[in-house]
Amino acid sequence: MHKYFDMKNLEVIVSPALLPFYNVKNKTVVVIDILRATSSICVAFKIGVEKILTLASVEECKLFKEFDFIIAAEKDAIKVDGFDLGNSPFEFENPLLAGKSIALATTNGTKAIKYASENGASQIVIGAFLNIDILCKWLLEQNNDVILLCAGWKNKFNLEDTLFAGAVVNKIGTSFNIDCDSALASKLLFENNINNLENIVRESSHAKRFKLQNNQTDDVKYCLQQNTAPVIPILEGSYFKNML
Amino acid sequence: MHKYFDMKNLEVIVSPALLPFYNVKNKTVVVIDILRATSSICVAFKIGVEKILTLASVEECKLFKEFDFIIAAEKDAIKVDGFDLGNSPFEFENPLLAGKSIALATTNGTKAIKYASENGASQIVIGAFLNIDILCKWLLEQNNDVILLCAGWKNKFNLEDTLFAGAVVNKIGTSFNIDCDSALASKLLFENNINNLENIVRESSHAKRFKLQNNQTDDVKYCLQQNTAPVIPILEGSYFKNML
Repeated sequence: MHKYFDMKNLEVIVSPALLPFYNVKNKTVVVIDILRATSSICVAFKIGVEKILTLASVEECKLFKEFDFIIAAEKDAIKVDGFDLGNSPFEFENPLLAGKSIALATTNGTKAIKYASENGASQIVIGAFLNIDILCKWLLEQNNDVILLCAGWKNKFNLEDTLFAGAVVNKIGTSFNIDCDSALASKLLFENNINNLENIVRESSHAKRFKLQNNQTDDVKYCLQQNTAPVIPILEGSYFKNML
Repeated sequence: MHKYFDMKNLEVIVSPALLPFYNVKNKTVVVIDILRATSSICVAFKIGVEKILTLASVEECKLFKEFDFIIAAEKDAIKVDGFDLGNSPFEFENPLLAGKSIALATTNGTKAIKYASENGASQIVIGAFLNIDILCKWLLEQNNDVILLCAGWKNKFNLEDTLFAGAVVNKIGTSFNIDCDSALASKLLFENNINNLENIVRESSHAKRFKLQNNQTDDVKYCLQQNTAPVIPILEGSYFKNML
């Protein structure tokens, strides 16, 4: 029993719109936007990008062009006109980005980051399948309450973010106290479909939207790879930096 | 292809707090609060209750005592002092309730009903495992877009409501167009765990809360029974009535 009461809590929030019903203060918040913001952020740091500024609006993001930032923005899964990059991880794999600063606006991911930051989270870290194992190891080392925050799609539940949350609960859940139905559900969803993740995500509304709009079917496969970008992007002041 | 475009849409909303991100106007909304409001409503109509008024607050509910209503209220899963009934389906199985009017306040279910009503749903109907098959048959007959609205727990995702939504998608999903990740996820969750529902729900935070507070472990088993209360409770004006 002693161990039970000492254990830190692990919770999953399936949409940023549900954040107000959770207490994030002093907790470690993992922001998850598998398709594609947090996957792309991991790729950027693997390539050696110096820092990333995430912004909730495309208009704000554009302002940073004159300060020598690479500017990246997607809206409804399409690159915005006048920007250097969209939000596909393939675009971030460019070695010319090493040492650069990126300003990134996306539909869902950056809003979730802003929400978590404004609500007093002690640490905000980026999660994706691409950095899952090193992230889980780091979360265990922090010895802090953890919230896995799914960016979702326009404040709706989405499959790929929830499956990733379930993968994290699967890997580290036994070291935490879990009194959270969305943590239990996402764990079940991941474990029950562990050999079929790609098919399930391809069936998801978000992936279908990609396919219809951009024929970006490779992004799904790319973003489900595990541990190809072992980085820990943490928010320091206004910027994400790789703390490794 | 013709059939695809003619098909009605089926969506799942995992928390009432996400309702603003969906369009419920002119749609059929199924309100789901398995533990225990919508299960108890089905039992009440099976017993022959004439009408049920659902209220978002305990204080409002209490006012209806003087108008000859049976008043029922729970707060945090416990019956409120001074009320005739709490929110356990066992209390509603009393034959003395036949022909009576009930005013019911609950933590989660009635708020979801109020939200759906205020947002222009064309029909609001009560869903529970206790009436699942007749409800599914009725939904198919309506030939209208359907939203399965989980009441959740204090605006958070909960397992039992999502499992029920998944059971409905499992039964009637092929007759609808589904472009909704929570519909896909809840269907998977139900289908992958179809023989283990009771154990999963007993692991849920809500069920554990019951057990700790009230030792009401039988409510879980009771509310997972299928088709023991074949009624269709529909909101007509201010009251739910059984339209069968």
